[in-house]
Amino acid sequence: MEAFVVRSEPYYRPVADEVELFTGAYNQRIPVLLKGPTGCGKTRFVEYMAWKLARQLHVVSGQDTSPSGDVQLPLVTIACHEDLTASDLVGRYLLDATGTRWIDGPMTRAVKTGAILYLDEVVEARKDTTVLIHPLTDHRRLLPVEKRGSVIEADDRFLLCVSYNPRYQSALKDLKPSTRQRFIAIEFDYPPPHIEADIIQRESGCSAARAETLARLGVKVRNLREHGLQEGASTRLLIYAARLMNEGLPARRACQVALVWSLTDDAELQQSIAEVVGAVVE
Amino acid sequence: MEAFVVRSEPYYRPVADEVELFTGAYNQRIPVLLKGPTGCGKTRFVEYMAWKLARQLHVVSGQDTSPSGDVQLPLVTIACHEDLTASDLVGRYLLDATGTRWIDGPMTRAVKTGAILYLDEVVEARKDTTVLIHPLTDHRRLLPVEKRGSVIEADDRFLLCVSYNPRYQSALKDLKPSTRQRFIAIEFDYPPPHIEADIIQRESGCSAARAETLARLGVKVRNLREHGLQEGASTRLLIYAARLMNEGLPARRACQVALVWSLTDDAELQQSIAEVVGAVVE
Amino acid sequence: MEAFVVRSEPYYRPVADEVELFTGAYNQRIPVLLKGPTGCGKTRFVEYMAWKLARQLHVVSGQDTSPSGDVQLPLVTIACHEDLTASDLVGRYLLDATGTRWIDGPMTRAVKTGAILYLDEVVEARKDTTVLIHPLTDHRRLLPVEKRGSVIEADDRFLLCVSYNPRYQSALKDLKPSTRQRFIAIEFDYPPPHIEADIIQRESGCSAARAETLARLGVKVRNLREHGLQEGASTRLLIYAARLMNEGLPARRACQVALVWSLTDDAELQQSIAEVVGAVVE
Amino acid sequence: MEAFVVRSEPYYRPVADEVELFTGAYNQRIPVLLKGPTGCGKTRFVEYMAWKLARQLHVVSGQDTSPSGDVQLPLVTIACHEDLTASDLVGRYLLDATGTRWIDGPMTRAVKTGAILYLDEVVEARKDTTVLIHPLTDHRRLLPVEKRGSVIEADDRFLLCVSYNPRYQSALKDLKPSTRQRFIAIEFDYPPPHIEADIIQRESGCSAARAETLARLGVKVRNLREHGLQEGASTRLLIYAARLMNEGLPARRACQVALVWSLTDDAELQQSIAEVVGAVVE
Amino acid sequence: MEAFVVRSEPYYRPVADEVELFTGAYNQRIPVLLKGPTGCGKTRFVEYMAWKLARQLHVVSGQDTSPSGDVQLPLVTIACHEDLTASDLVGRYLLDATGTRWIDGPMTRAVKTGAILYLDEVVEARKDTTVLIHPLTDHRRLLPVEKRGSVIEADDRFLLCVSYNPRYQSALKDLKPSTRQRFIAIEFDYPPPHIEADIIQRESGCSAARAETLARLGVKVRNLREHGLQEGASTRLLIYAARLMNEGLPARRACQVALVWSLTDDAELQQSIAEVVGAVVE
Amino acid sequence: MEAFVVRSEPYYRPVADEVELFTGAYNQRIPVLLKGPTGCGKTRFVEYMAWKLARQLHVVSGQDTSPSGDVQLPLVTIACHEDLTASDLVGRYLLDATGTRWIDGPMTRAVKTGAILYLDEVVEARKDTTVLIHPLTDHRRLLPVEKRGSVIEADDRFLLCVSYNPRYQSALKDLKPSTRQRFIAIEFDYPPPHIEADIIQRESGCSAARAETLARLGVKVRNLREHGLQEGASTRLLIYAARLMNEGLPARRACQVALVWSLTDDAELQQSIAEVVGAVVE
Repeated sequence: MEAFVVRSEPYYRPVADEVELFTGAYNQRIPVLLKGPTGCGKTRFVEYMAWKLARQLHVVSGQDTSPSGDVQLPLVTIACHEDLTASDLVGRYLLDATGTRWIDGPMTRAVKTGAILYLDEVVEARKDTTVLIHPLTDHRRLLPVEKRGSVIEADDRFLLCVSYNPRYQSALKDLKPSTRQRFIAIEFDYPPPHIEADIIQRESGCSAARAETLARLGVKVRNLREHGLQEGASTRLLIYAARLMNEGLPARRACQVALVWSLTDDAELQQSIAEVVGAVVE
Repeated sequence: MEAFVVRSEPYYRPVADEVELFTGAYNQRIPVLLKGPTGCGKTRFVEYMAWKLARQLHVVSGQDTSPSGDVQLPLVTIACHEDLTASDLVGRYLLDATGTRWIDGPMTRAVKTGAILYLDEVVEARKDTTVLIHPLTDHRRLLPVEKRGSVIEADDRFLLCVSYNPRYQSALKDLKPSTRQRFIAIEFDYPPPHIEADIIQRESGCSAARAETLARLGVKVRNLREHGLQEGASTRLLIYAARLMNEGLPARRACQVALVWSLTDDAELQQSIAEVVGAVVE
Repeated sequence: MEAFVVRSEPYYRPVADEVELFTGAYNQRIPVLLKGPTGCGKTRFVEYMAWKLARQLHVVSGQDTSPSGDVQLPLVTIACHEDLTASDLVGRYLLDATGTRWIDGPMTRAVKTGAILYLDEVVEARKDTTVLIHPLTDHRRLLPVEKRGSVIEADDRFLLCVSYNPRYQSALKDLKPSTRQRFIAIEFDYPPPHIEADIIQRESGCSAARAETLARLGVKVRNLREHGLQEGASTRLLIYAARLMNEGLPARRACQVALVWSLTDDAELQQSIAEVVGAVVE
Repeated sequence: MEAFVVRSEPYYRPVADEVELFTGAYNQRIPVLLKGPTGCGKTRFVEYMAWKLARQLHVVSGQDTSPSGDVQLPLVTIACHEDLTASDLVGRYLLDATGTRWIDGPMTRAVKTGAILYLDEVVEARKDTTVLIHPLTDHRRLLPVEKRGSVIEADDRFLLCVSYNPRYQSALKDLKPSTRQRFIAIEFDYPPPHIEADIIQRESGCSAARAETLARLGVKVRNLREHGLQEGASTRLLIYAARLMNEGLPARRACQVALVWSLTDDAELQQSIAEVVGAVVE
Repeated sequence: MEAFVVRSEPYYRPVADEVELFTGAYNQRIPVLLKGPTGCGKTRFVEYMAWKLARQLHVVSGQDTSPSGDVQLPLVTIACHEDLTASDLVGRYLLDATGTRWIDGPMTRAVKTGAILYLDEVVEARKDTTVLIHPLTDHRRLLPVEKRGSVIEADDRFLLCVSYNPRYQSALKDLKPSTRQRFIAIEFDYPPPHIEADIIQRESGCSAARAETLARLGVKVRNLREHGLQEGASTRLLIYAARLMNEGLPARRACQVALVWSLTDDAELQQSIAEVVGAVVE
Repeated sequence: MEAFVVRSEPYYRPVADEVELFTGAYNQRIPVLLKGPTGCGKTRFVEYMAWKLARQLHVVSGQDTSPSGDVQLPLVTIACHEDLTASDLVGRYLLDATGTRWIDGPMTRAVKTGAILYLDEVVEARKDTTVLIHPLTDHRRLLPVEKRGSVIEADDRFLLCVSYNPRYQSALKDLKPSTRQRFIAIEFDYPPPHIEADIIQRESGCSAARAETLARLGVKVRNLREHGLQEGASTRLLIYAARLMNEGLPARRACQVALVWSLTDDAELQQSIAEVVGAVVE
């Protein structure tokens, strides 16, 4: 599990009290659901919390430390999709020279070693995956390993965290209330412009002025969602634009490949985004 | 099966005569169907009955005791879903160094050792799973193990218990009458406020006043079901709110993450729940 | 096959000439289709006929007796469903230390040993299962074992019997005429009240008066089918009610869990059944 | 393949020139498609032709005789369905102590040994099965065994014969023209009453008068197809009725189980058939 | 691959410049798509071209000759269907006594040995099959063998040829432009009457007069397509009719089984075809 | 991976600043999405960039050179389709004489060795494939190998490039925003006539005049898209026409097989294209 430990402090800029909320939930070992649009920072936030809570555990108890002396709280991330089976998560038998051998899956390893298990886009998961998390998220904190006929008790440090983007949710892909009501939920949105400018500047190495311009551009492009754009520009795309400019590409051309062409195939919407770019970027 | 024995008395607050009904059915070995909304306590009730009936068996007959002297009535819980196959339940052949070896599934072990077998959300099960329980639930009390060409007689202590939430039932996911008419049914609902307050207080460790407030809040939020909320707040979510408050989070903020954001993605419904929270929680 | 022999006379109360019809068909080795609602006694009837015809075979010919001197006519029951494959029925190869080994399925064993093979709810079977019975049900009386490239001639005592509930049959799940016209058909319905009272009394051990009341209740509840109840109360549910009363539960409460809550989730229909219960049960 | 040889002359009553048509097609090795309703005698006809053509081959050429001196023309019958794979027909690898071993499927054995291969209800077959017969039915007369990378030339005696019931054919289950135009087609219908009476008498052993009555009944029941009956009574059902009467069952009761209840679940149609029975059977 | 070499000159009657077009495409190694109705001679044409181009290769270069001195250009024909997997075509691992062994599929063998690979009814193929041919049909001429992580360069003689019947093509089963634009296309139709008469005479051995009559009949039956006939009579069916007449069957009866009953199940269309037969055939 | 290195400079004619855009993105290791119609040169462009960037890496750093002294930047191309599983890409266990052995898939090899991984027609990929690329395309640059429980860090040279044709995109087959916003996007179209003529001349070896005529023809045929043509003629088809002319086929006939018959099955559209051909080609 060494590979899953977050070694250095991830860059994360809190927007509200999300760090306090997650810390409180973790202290109570209450599972957490993160909701928010694409690229608003949910994944980065979980990485940050895994790093931060490992520090806190270190302070609280000297026990359970790694060879390097740190308390470990590995972060196991699984991107959910409809072809991911319960066996992929829990484990399976492999044929060996001397018969079959059991291999723990990533969920089993996370449960045993006391990791934060992060199921990204959980609404994409199959039913057998979703059901797996039920006994992990109530007072039992158990993972049934049906193929072995056994039950694993979660390590005391273990926490389950899941996420999804409520804008995609349809009747077909929805969390059932019996799953949903096992989590507290924290809602995310894009950061406010002054914070987003900070993030762009830090992540791309561009000037403060350029970062501020791109943050303003982000706000304006996101407003186009009311005109049919499926999803606004993520902070990541704004950083891409800044990095292409760093490579010497003209600012508007960089925005064209990072925002206009990237966000949609619809000619009219592309025209609208291009006009926004033309108005904001010199 | 030792791992499935309920060792200590689970906390369960009876609401009506459900303990007597289940005891009577168990004495007659009549299979039981539990109906009710998410988080109303069905799972906890079955755990409690497994513990209580084991006590009763101990009194009635000194025989069949475990090494520790108790009569064992393990509780095997299976969360049903559409990818759970009959083989997952009954057992399968595994390839070994010397050929194939048979591994009993959890249903087979429950039938052999005389457990309470609890199939949670049974309407989610596949047809081959549903059909498996037919000979277990009539005068035969048999589990056919078709892959081995054998038939297992259920231990005398064995009982089948299933549950589902009638609010989700659709034409597609329904118990066929030929399955349904093998069970007596007990209907559950959320506990009345004074009992729910007791539960919240005991499970979260909060003050009686806070527990009473949260129980009142639960009733009001559940009334929003008439305005489109898919499912009311479970007792579990109310306990989550209390536990977050114990961590020092402001009461309304705790309710926002535990109830408002958790229950729905719909902005209007969130607004309605937030107003209820604002009116009840100071 | 010893496990599938019906050892003691099953309790069965004939309603009309169904015993004579089945006996005539068996003497001619004409396959039989049983039609009727849930819980009207089809399964019990087949068990009774397997026991009775074994007696008759004993009288007709002294040969083919078991170690205990009886002529054996085992009863192999298979509940059909859409995930039951031809391999599950006919047999499959298993990997062994010395290669692959063939294991006969339950249908193959029934055909070889001369059993009554009872396919319950045959309309739920997959096409490959349905097609398997064609050569078994005409003048050929053969079971092709395609995976082995062989053909098995049915033992002279073998008979195929199938059942289904015509109330569920839809366009999607229907016996094709080419399958259907291989059987004579016997239609079943709930027994008349005086016979049903006998059955309730015998199976629950309750008083004659209580049995008579419950039989009257059964008739009245079944009349609610005209008001939307999917399927009437089976005799089994009436027996459940009697057995719960034996446990000391109040009569109306026993009827509530065994009939009202058990038969439907619909509040209005529950109300109607409860009114019928209130009118009939004191 | 000894098991598939038709040893004794099957009883078959020709209705028109179908024997000459099939003989001509066989002499030219032109594949044959048989069309007709359920139970009109297609399967029996193919058995008869396999027996008859084996006699003719014996006369034409002394070569290719079996140990018993007969020319063999085995009949391999396969009931098609949507779960029958190309591997089931052509063959598959089985794991052995020394690696994998190839097992010929029934189609491969029929092609190699020069059998009549009869695919019953061919429209139910999967696409991969249907496509297999293309190179077998043109000038190539080849069976490609793709899993082994080889091609098998059909024995000179081999002929493919397929059948289906045109009344079931829907847009979804249809022979593509590229398949269909590889066959000449012979259409079958129920035999005329005087021939059908002969068949009933011979197959049931009943009196000529009873056979004549049942043949008349068959015609009248088939006329009900215009009033919604999905498929008329097959000759087989009429023979069942005669055989039940032989067992001493009353004539009308025998017709009820063999015709009325057997043909349909529809109460009105059952009433219509019962009236026809009442008018014809005393 | 010896088994796939076309040994003797196939009988093929060119209708237009299709031989020159295919030769030109082959010389440039441009993949070829053949379009046309059922039984118009596409398969025979490819066989002929494989034979003819092998002759031409022999003249052009003395190298690459077989033991018999011929240049080999095997023809590997694969009938596409929705259950044919990429593994069936490219190859798979088989378990052996000493582990797994790789077996080349027919496509891999064709690519390696420089064959004409003919994918019949390519629109029936699955997506993974269709995609396989992309790198084979551009300047790369490569077959990626993903399961082995390798790439095979096509032999210089290799050519891909595919076919389909445009009359069946639906929105669901269509070649994507990215696949389609990798081929030049040659359209086929039924041969003109004087050529078709030649073919019928040669293939059936009937008289010139009878062949001419049947060719005229073919034209008239094909005109019925405007009246709802799904597909006209193939030349093959006309040859079948001639061969049945050779067996002594009456001409109109031969046409009935080879054309009327064979082409359709629709009573009205059968009547129309029969009338055409009656007008043309004496 | 030697087999995947682009050895000689591919012929590529830049149309705009696409080489600079890709170079800038590569220097920043920003994943690239190429959009454009069939046959407009996307695949060729990626090959060219793989060759060109390998040169640039060679200049920038002397390290990481191949035996031949070049810096290697292999190009691994995968045509996506709905039957390509995550295991096909990442790797799988194979059974060996001594148990199971892991085989890296092409994606894993590309990630390890620092290749350009090109996923062609990425919208055709299954969900489990699409999700695989998420951690590869953000700051993590990781490939999780779930079946082994490990995570692979991408080599510093690695870049992911994907493509699709926006004209096919439907609601069913669409990149989710959470996937899409991980790429900058470059839009391609057919080259302008003077460039396309250069390409045709170079690739076919025809005269400048003929190439110019064919390029003009291409423009006119593409205009027919407004009249229902699904997709315009690719440059490849124009080159095919030129090469067939080189073989001595008449110009209009070459255009008929390479453009008219190839582009569509619709008779009216074929007529329109033929008229365009007649007007442009003498």
